[in-house]
Amino acid sequence: MTKEELYQQILQKQSYLCVGLDSDIEKIPARFKSETDPVLAFNKYIIDQTADFCVGYKINTAFYESNGAAGWETMQKTLAHIPQNIFTIADAKRGDIGNTVHQYAKAFFKTLDFNSITVAPYMGKDSVSPFLEYAQKWVILLALTSNPSSQDFQFLSINQDKKTLFEEVLTRSQEWTNDEAMMYVVGATQASMLQKIRSLAPKHFLLVPGVGAQGGSLQEVSKYGMNSQIGLLVNSSRGIIFSENPKESARKLQQEMQQHIEEYHKK
Amino acid sequence: MTKEELYQQILQKQSYLCVGLDSDIEKIPARFKSETDPVLAFNKYIIDQTADFCVGYKINTAFYESNGAAGWETMQKTLAHIPQNIFTIADAKRGDIGNTVHQYAKAFFKTLDFNSITVAPYMGKDSVSPFLEYAQKWVILLALTSNPSSQDFQFLSINQDKKTLFEEVLTRSQEWTNDEAMMYVVGATQASMLQKIRSLAPKHFLLVPGVGAQGGSLQEVSKYGMNSQIGLLVNSSRGIIFSENPKESARKLQQEMQQHIEEYHKK
Repeated sequence: MTKEELYQQILQKQSYLCVGLDSDIEKIPARFKSETDPVLAFNKYIIDQTADFCVGYKINTAFYESNGAAGWETMQKTLAHIPQNIFTIADAKRGDIGNTVHQYAKAFFKTLDFNSITVAPYMGKDSVSPFLEYAQKWVILLALTSNPSSQDFQFLSINQDKKTLFEEVLTRSQEWTNDEAMMYVVGATQASMLQKIRSLAPKHFLLVPGVGAQGGSLQEVSKYGMNSQIGLLVNSSRGIIFSENPKESARKLQQEMQQHIEEYHKK
Repeated sequence: MTKEELYQQILQKQSYLCVGLDSDIEKIPARFKSETDPVLAFNKYIIDQTADFCVGYKINTAFYESNGAAGWETMQKTLAHIPQNIFTIADAKRGDIGNTVHQYAKAFFKTLDFNSITVAPYMGKDSVSPFLEYAQKWVILLALTSNPSSQDFQFLSINQDKKTLFEEVLTRSQEWTNDEAMMYVVGATQASMLQKIRSLAPKHFLLVPGVGAQGGSLQEVSKYGMNSQIGLLVNSSRGIIFSENPKESARKLQQEMQQHIEEYHKK
């Protein structure tokens, strides 16, 4: 999917919502548990309920891998149920080098036909390049994460205090490709950092997890993160999929997002 | 597996060899291709040929994920074929937070019964802690990797030039657990760095990939990396599994290692 196609879908749906399919089998409603593949049945239900209100689905691979080979089959079948025009994210946080990354690219862009994958930056450009050989596929690089221990390394001062590690990740990685093939993960609990991030990456889409259950504010994220092509994919997982009414939860977020889009255009 | 058990196995076999099952289906010998599961048949052959000479097997998950659900089944069956007393490594380089890491831990320590998993450090302590809840299981944290672009971030100077990022990873992570539950990945092409690493982590086991195909020298790694409990797992993948005679290739490396162990004890 191209950036323009994603943008057009955002405009059409007036939404930059991404629904996270963190479909923990322990937490899905009891009525699905008698199905042959409970997680798949649950995912299909969630997708059918929310597809009108979101522009992306994020599949957190850990929740599928924990069920082994059967879990990978569930992931594959879930992906097949997502409407073609909706952006798909393998939240896999892979990161390796050389022929290994080529295998990961094959796994997520060919064997599974995801539009994008999240990638960890620690090993540098080599971890990213093989993914970029696939046209219209995206790398979503971890920049700033929403967990308490993001402080351990991401905020370290480098190059004599001139910047932090996550800022260096944001700037260095822009030498590898452009905003038509790369996005960044930016934790929503760090909304105060969004202004800085936008100054370093004004045009890139940002994938923002952590709104809802993790405490991020949609209003702040939208205020500081939005750009002229919206430039945001805000993810909500548990807050939608395990809510009493996933359709209404998604619609409510979409309506809030529509307001934020309107406010942006008034500026 | 405990550290002592691993050490005893090293002493018994006079080897610190780890065989990497990077079993690319494109590269395995033609005679396996008619099997129902060619990669599994190949892996069983390699394990049978090499088990006397190595103390560990490293399964690079990318090579299995690229074949989707079937690949995960191959991984599971491969693991079942590895003798119980040999150390197993899921070279998965996972790294995430909160309930997601719990799912990865379940995937690799319960659904699949690996002894250890490689983990990426970027997200900090939260990416590691859930793995540590499993007794006698190991986290092998990426510290210094053997690829050219390890320069991008791992060698950045932090805290006003006092140290580099990979050194900070080595020291900070020792606050999270000890050398009975954590090892470090240290690329063998960086043998010159091993002295520094040993000064920061004298007692930890180091998993050293990159010997052989990637150009690392076993002699240098052994000279600078060995400690009183040997403290090394040196991995070779392609150099063994795709050699004409995997058994002899493994035996040859074991014999070299035996010499290095003897030299160490002469010192």
